[in-house]
Amino acid sequence: MAQEKSMRAVVFKGVGNVQVEDRKVPTIRDPRDAIIKVTVAALCGSDLHWYRGHQETPTGFIPGHEFAGVIHELGSQVTGFNIGDSVVATFTTQCGECFYCKRKQTSRCSQSFLFGNGAGNTSIDGGQAEYVRVPFASSTLIVRPKEIPECMLVLMGDIFPTGYFAASRFLKNIPQDEAKSSTTVVVGCGPVGICAIAAASKWCDNIIAIDMVPERLEEARRLGAKPILHSDDPAAKVLASTEGRGADFVLEVVGNAAAMELCIQLVRPFGNISSVGVQTEELVFNGPTLYAKNVTIAWGRCPVRGIFEEALARLSEVHEKLAFLCQCRMNLEQAPEAYKLFNDRKVHKVLFSP
Amino acid sequence: MAQEKSMRAVVFKGVGNVQVEDRKVPTIRDPRDAIIKVTVAALCGSDLHWYRGHQETPTGFIPGHEFAGVIHELGSQVTGFNIGDSVVATFTTQCGECFYCKRKQTSRCSQSFLFGNGAGNTSIDGGQAEYVRVPFASSTLIVRPKEIPECMLVLMGDIFPTGYFAASRFLKNIPQDEAKSSTTVVVGCGPVGICAIAAASKWCDNIIAIDMVPERLEEARRLGAKPILHSDDPAAKVLASTEGRGADFVLEVVGNAAAMELCIQLVRPFGNISSVGVQTEELVFNGPTLYAKNVTIAWGRCPVRGIFEEALARLSEVHEKLAFLCQCRMNLEQAPEAYKLFNDRKVHKVLFSP
Repeated sequence: MAQEKSMRAVVFKGVGNVQVEDRKVPTIRDPRDAIIKVTVAALCGSDLHWYRGHQETPTGFIPGHEFAGVIHELGSQVTGFNIGDSVVATFTTQCGECFYCKRKQTSRCSQSFLFGNGAGNTSIDGGQAEYVRVPFASSTLIVRPKEIPECMLVLMGDIFPTGYFAASRFLKNIPQDEAKSSTTVVVGCGPVGICAIAAASKWCDNIIAIDMVPERLEEARRLGAKPILHSDDPAAKVLASTEGRGADFVLEVVGNAAAMELCIQLVRPFGNISSVGVQTEELVFNGPTLYAKNVTIAWGRCPVRGIFEEALARLSEVHEKLAFLCQCRMNLEQAPEAYKLFNDRKVHKVLFSP
Repeated sequence: MAQEKSMRAVVFKGVGNVQVEDRKVPTIRDPRDAIIKVTVAALCGSDLHWYRGHQETPTGFIPGHEFAGVIHELGSQVTGFNIGDSVVATFTTQCGECFYCKRKQTSRCSQSFLFGNGAGNTSIDGGQAEYVRVPFASSTLIVRPKEIPECMLVLMGDIFPTGYFAASRFLKNIPQDEAKSSTTVVVGCGPVGICAIAAASKWCDNIIAIDMVPERLEEARRLGAKPILHSDDPAAKVLASTEGRGADFVLEVVGNAAAMELCIQLVRPFGNISSVGVQTEELVFNGPTLYAKNVTIAWGRCPVRGIFEEALARLSEVHEKLAFLCQCRMNLEQAPEAYKLFNDRKVHKVLFSP
């Protein structure tokens, strides 16, 4: 047997505290596993849920659900890959065979694991480390697509497909001319909201962006959206720009009750709300309003694997405009500092290189 | 000028109290109006909202939003009809020209009036009378379709299209084989729920019906649905019959918070809930559940005119099975007794002949 090797890894130590420590290099536990040598791993907004203590999790796990690398070791049942292949992973695993996977609803695969989280019994160590174990590797890894620069590959693990999912859920199913002339409002312009704008502009000419942070709105504006500051009466402004009706489509990219309430205000009768924000609160709706608006609302986690190819096709068209999201690169050893900068919203996203 | 004529009409006098009184025959007020001589008008479940006092309305209005008759008088701008034509009306009016009407979202027409209700400023006198005034007649009346027996025509004014809308909203947009093998649960088997079952069976082989009343479930069973009594743990039974997943589609035909909560329990991850129940309460949802289920929910009033032709095509296939809904015919003068029988659930529906 080979001697146990050690690696460097970011570890969650408690609220507001990550450290870089020595850990054992993971090994194959199941013949469907692969071990990836990480080349790049990103820090994502949803990492702040446990970092800030909004989501309670045990300490001791390795974060990182957005990562890419090369195949270091393959379980005996993994097909379609060779040692040394450059790959990217989806932020949740999927078996590729169950009821949900067959329907491309991969985020609800009955054997799905979430990378880089300590909560529940379906969370596993993530990619902010030198190596990471990937279960169900045949259906969770994708050979590195050449369509986008390597440095932006991590966007395909979560946030770009998630933004694409928010936008595409309704827009891709209606006639092209109807989509083009419709009004889409994006509530929340963090990195996922920015990706949602970049995706929605594939179908829709009139995109309105709402956020509390002027700098984020400036980025939304550069992508072609019309910015409205959250404190500047967005409901009145959206009504005014839609002949008094409200928005045809509203994308919820925040994940709290206040944002959802705003979406209901903004949407027109027979309009659609697509929510990808991670909901942690109770949501209270006025029943007569929902009935009177004939509204449709879709919630939930993006099935990254299920829509990977179509999201990738869109990212290949817009990646230059999104390069600013991936400009902050730091060494894994700088993780404690990186988390602090990210938590203070001083950087969009951090890409770690081990 | 012609002498003012009088007619007999049902009038709402207060909670639990309707009377038949003399009223003036309505006259053309707008060139787009028509006056209909009523041949049949029905009593619908939603009439119980104001009859029972659940919905507060002023007294004095003439009820009846489901009616058919012959054209008695036409405004100068009404097109497509002649005096004496047999017609049926939709339960709300529509202008036929606005943003919503152009999109077949006629229930949110910006000039929509609701027949037979006293609430708000968009309610007008209904058809439980010898004559009724129909605004926007060109787009609110339809020449009597020959596909179904005249005695069942009133079903096309509201409840059959509403049941069809509940079922079709999601089912008609997915591949035929996927719809066929899916599981659709109908929550609430009053007359609209029965119509929803009759409509859903166009697409779907596995329909489950839930209600508190065994007699209603027996009718659902006769239409091919698998009945589950509300007190008999429907959530466990639906899981058991779907390999532990939950229903692909849930149709909400009740209109209260408890029914909506049950729908959330019954639906599978990535499933769809179609709600046509008139919502009068606050709806409280667990945000993490909505996210974890990737659920889509659509609410609201059926756009009867927008889907009239497709609903009619389905009713022409199933009308014999629904004839039992229209078997109780009474004279308009018997309205006080009819409302009491209906309120006590002793009849499905009452059809009045003036």
